Amino acid sequence: MVDLTVRRLLINYKTLEEFKKFKEYGIQELSMMEDLQENIIENDSESPFYGIYFGDKLIARMSLYRIDGKYDRYFEPAQDYLELWKLEVLPQYRNKGYGKALVDYAKSFNLPIKTNGRQGSSSFWEMMGFESVTYNPERDRGENPYVWYPKGVKEQEL
Amino acid sequence: MVDLTVRRLLINYKTLEEFKKFKEYGIQELSMMEDLQENIIENDSESPFYGIYFGDKLIARMSLYRIDGKYDRYFEPAQDYLELWKLEVLPQYRNKGYGKALVDYAKSFNLPIKTNGRQGSSSFWEMMGFESVTYNPERDRGENPYVWYPKGVKEQEL
Repeated sequence: MVDLTVRRLLINYKTLEEFKKFKEYGIQELSMMEDLQENIIENDSESPFYGIYFGDKLIARMSLYRIDGKYDRYFEPAQDYLELWKLEVLPQYRNKGYGKALVDYAKSFNLPIKTNGRQGSSSFWEMMGFESVTYNPERDRGENPYVWYPKGVKEQEL
Repeated sequence: MVDLTVRRLLINYKTLEEFKKFKEYGIQELSMMEDLQENIIENDSESPFYGIYFGDKLIARMSLYRIDGKYDRYFEPAQDYLELWKLEVLPQYRNKGYGKALVDYAKSFNLPIKTNGRQGSSSFWEMMGFESVTYNPERDRGENPYVWYPKGVKEQEL
């Protein structure tokens, strides 16, 4: 039995240490570490990350960010939506439903979702019910946007 | 002797076929293919890509996009800048200066440059004279921005 409980991650030294195991570790994580060290944020502050634990080990994570509807260039009607990034399951835990559990959690907010599909990920996103959009260079700037439409929402006309 | 001549790439079936060899092939390339097939763009239209050939084979490429200064949130003074993405050298041609030749070409416009550093690329960007910026979640949305400042330009205060 796998435990698919998704938890909002708290920023503390343990979480930040676990983040180092993920491939997509970058300036965002380094910035959280600095903010914690310099007391700019409190220990156990809420992070924009959600994750799944196996025992006390973080094995899957994603970041979700709510974008204000006034910046929405993807959905019709224009509205607040979620930008999902850094979805990643540690190698030995893949193909067990952890990635899907995170995406289902993101969908449970019932807001449109936009992500930037990594190369080779299109079949995953399509299985999750996401669709690619009409590419707009000025908006998409080399990204591979995949979006999920809740009921009543469709692609914004460019 | 390696030929480091950088050329602006033209959109035609040969170029689009060569693009398939690059890992970062996605919606942008598929969209160019569709536009060509449906005669929305002419054969041999200019693309936003620049590349280096070895004989008649495309072995390195990048995309450059000029962002209007009114959207500049990275540089002080705010100004037009270049967004660089999909910088990639085919595996057997790496570590021969092709990547640097492309970046030097981008710098020759003497505009600030912003890129999203892939994981593991920070030492490359630092060698190229790029710097990481102060992470801003609302602006950077999980990216790893690396920027290059021409003389007289500095980081924009957030």
